[in-house]
Amino acid sequence: MAEKRPRIFSGHRPTGHLHLGHLEGTLRNWVALQDTYDCVFGIADWHALTDHYDNTEPLAAYTEEIAIDWLAVGLDPKRSILMIQSQVKQHAELELLLSMVTPLSWLERCPTWRDVLSQEELPEEMRSYGRLGYPVLQTADIILYKSDLVPVGKDQLPHLELAREITRRFNNIYGPIFPEPQARLGEFAAVPGLDGRKMSKSYGNTLEIGDSPEELRKKIKTMFTDPLKIRMGDHGHPEGCPVFALHKIYSPPERVAEVEAECKAGTLGCVADKNDLADNLIRALAPIHERRAELEADRAQVLRILSEGNEAAREIAEATMVEVRRAMRLPFSGGE
Amino acid sequence: MAEKRPRIFSGHRPTGHLHLGHLEGTLRNWVALQDTYDCVFGIADWHALTDHYDNTEPLAAYTEEIAIDWLAVGLDPKRSILMIQSQVKQHAELELLLSMVTPLSWLERCPTWRDVLSQEELPEEMRSYGRLGYPVLQTADIILYKSDLVPVGKDQLPHLELAREITRRFNNIYGPIFPEPQARLGEFAAVPGLDGRKMSKSYGNTLEIGDSPEELRKKIKTMFTDPLKIRMGDHGHPEGCPVFALHKIYSPPERVAEVEAECKAGTLGCVADKNDLADNLIRALAPIHERRAELEADRAQVLRILSEGNEAAREIAEATMVEVRRAMRLPFSGGE
Repeated sequence: MAEKRPRIFSGHRPTGHLHLGHLEGTLRNWVALQDTYDCVFGIADWHALTDHYDNTEPLAAYTEEIAIDWLAVGLDPKRSILMIQSQVKQHAELELLLSMVTPLSWLERCPTWRDVLSQEELPEEMRSYGRLGYPVLQTADIILYKSDLVPVGKDQLPHLELAREITRRFNNIYGPIFPEPQARLGEFAAVPGLDGRKMSKSYGNTLEIGDSPEELRKKIKTMFTDPLKIRMGDHGHPEGCPVFALHKIYSPPERVAEVEAECKAGTLGCVADKNDLADNLIRALAPIHERRAELEADRAQVLRILSEGNEAAREIAEATMVEVRRAMRLPFSGGE
Repeated sequence: MAEKRPRIFSGHRPTGHLHLGHLEGTLRNWVALQDTYDCVFGIADWHALTDHYDNTEPLAAYTEEIAIDWLAVGLDPKRSILMIQSQVKQHAELELLLSMVTPLSWLERCPTWRDVLSQEELPEEMRSYGRLGYPVLQTADIILYKSDLVPVGKDQLPHLELAREITRRFNNIYGPIFPEPQARLGEFAAVPGLDGRKMSKSYGNTLEIGDSPEELRKKIKTMFTDPLKIRMGDHGHPEGCPVFALHKIYSPPERVAEVEAECKAGTLGCVADKNDLADNLIRALAPIHERRAELEADRAQVLRILSEGNEAAREIAEATMVEVRRAMRLPFSGGE
C-alpha cells in the first residue's frame, strides 16, 4: 500500500482566461507538486461570485477553458483531483459551520476587505456579506480536504494566516479534526505583461495560454520596449525591457546572451527582436498548444474528467463532514 | 389532482424545551394552518449555532424533544413536512449564494444585530460572521421551499421585511425564481410565566409542554400572585395575576367567572386557586401528554418521521436549487 502523501489544495477563480503569469507563477509549480503531494485543484466558481455576481454568464465557459489549460500544462487527473467548487456542496456546508466560530472582527481586519472598503466609489451592493466572508469560504476549501499545505505567494500569506486561525479556533472548540494548513512559499519570476507592468487581466496586458500563435505574434508586436531606444542603431537597455524579460523565460540561454549583447550594441532592432521572441515563445508553448487542441476537439473528455474529479472530491469531503458533524454533535450526526 | 395550496415555512431553534408560550403563541396556529396550507416546519439547528456554537451537546436531544412536542400537539406528518435544517444541505448552498447578493449594510442595520452590538460585555467571539448572517440563512430557509407565507408575530416583521428585500434583489438580478414571502400576522394572547413576566426560557419562568402533571403542580405552587392579597380574606385583583391569566386560557369559562368573583370577594385563597388551575391545566393538556407518552415510548417512529420529512424537504429543495443554479448560470447547471 502506498504511503500517505501530504495533501495540497489550490485553485483558480473562473473569472478570465489563464495567462503566462499563471503558467510561470503557479501552474508549473502545481505540475511539479504532483510528484510529491496528493493534490486537489479547484475551480472556485462560488468565490467568483463575490465580485462577479452580476456577470455570471461567462463563468461556465471560463471554467471549461481553465480545465483545458490545466490539463494542457500537465495537471494529471490520474494523480490529482481537478474539481469544481460548486459541485461539491460540502464546501458550502463547512463554510456555514465555520462562519459560526469566525469572529467578525477577524474578517473586518483582513487587508483585502479593507481594500474593498477603501474604494469609496464602490456601490454598496458590491460590499456584500459574501464578499466579507471570502476568507471563510477559502478556509473551508482548504481544510475540507484536510490539506497540509497550500502553495502561496508572499502576498497571500495574510489569507493563509487567517485560514490557520479559523482552523485553530474550530479545533479548539470541537476537537482536533483539521491539520493547520501550512504555507508552501514559492519564488517565481514575475512575468511582465505587454506594457511592462505585471501581467494581469485587469491591466489588459496578457498573453494567454490559449492564445493561438497568430494572436501571440500580434500581441508581441504591440509590446512596450526600451523607451530610450527609438531608432535602429540606438543602444538598448534590455534589463528594463519586457521583451527581454520574456526572452529570459522562453528563449534558449545562448540566444538570451546574444540578444542582450546585440541590443546593447544597437545592432538588434526591436521589430526583429520581437519576431525572434515570438518564434521562441511559440516553440516553447507548442506542446501545450498541441495538447490544448486535442482537448478542445474532445470537450466531452474534459467534462468527464471534471465529473470524475467532482465525485472523488465529494467522497473525501463527505468523509470530513461526517467527522465535523459528529465533533459538533449536530442532530442525526451519529456521534452521540 | 388536488389544487396547489400556498406554502408556509416556519420553525423552531433546538435551544430548549418548548413551553406553553410556544403552544399558545405558535403551535396551535401551526396546527390550524395545516388545514389550508402546504406547510414545512423546520428544526433550525444551524441557526442555533449562531449563539450556541460553544454548547452543542444538547442540540440533538432538544431536536428530538421538539419533534415529539410538535407531533403531540397535532402537527401531522401526513399533511406537513417536519424536517431538520442541517439534514437538507441545500439550505447552506442557498445561504451562500444569497450572501453574494446581500449588501452588508442591510445586515448591519438589522435590529437584532444592533442589539448584539449594544451588549458591550459580549466577548468578541460571540459577534461572529455567522451571527451577522442570521437573516440570510433565514431567508434561505423560507424561499428554498418557495414559501408564500410566513406566520410571524409583530416583533419579527423587520426580519421578514429583510427576507423580502433579499428575495427581491435575487429575483432582480437572476430572474423571478422566488415568490416574495408575505407575513401572516397572528394575534395571540401573551402567556405569562411563573413570575408574571412573558413566559420565556431566558427568564426561567416556563411551564413546558413536556412537564409531567407533578412538575406542573410543583411549578404552579411557586407562581407569583396578586401582591396586595396577603391573607385569606383579602380582596384580590385577578386582572394583574398570572394565575388568573392561565385560568382564562385553560379553565372552563364558567369557572373563570367564578374564580374572578371569588378572588375579588376574598373568598378564594391563592393556594386553593393554584390547585384548581393545576387541575384544569393538567386536564387541558391531557391529550397532548397522552400522545407525548406514546411517542416517547416509540422514539424510532419519531426519528423515522423526521427522516421522511428530511427526504421530502430535500426533494423540494433540490428542485428549487436546480432552477437557482440555472438562473445564475453556474457551471454544470445545465442552463446554457
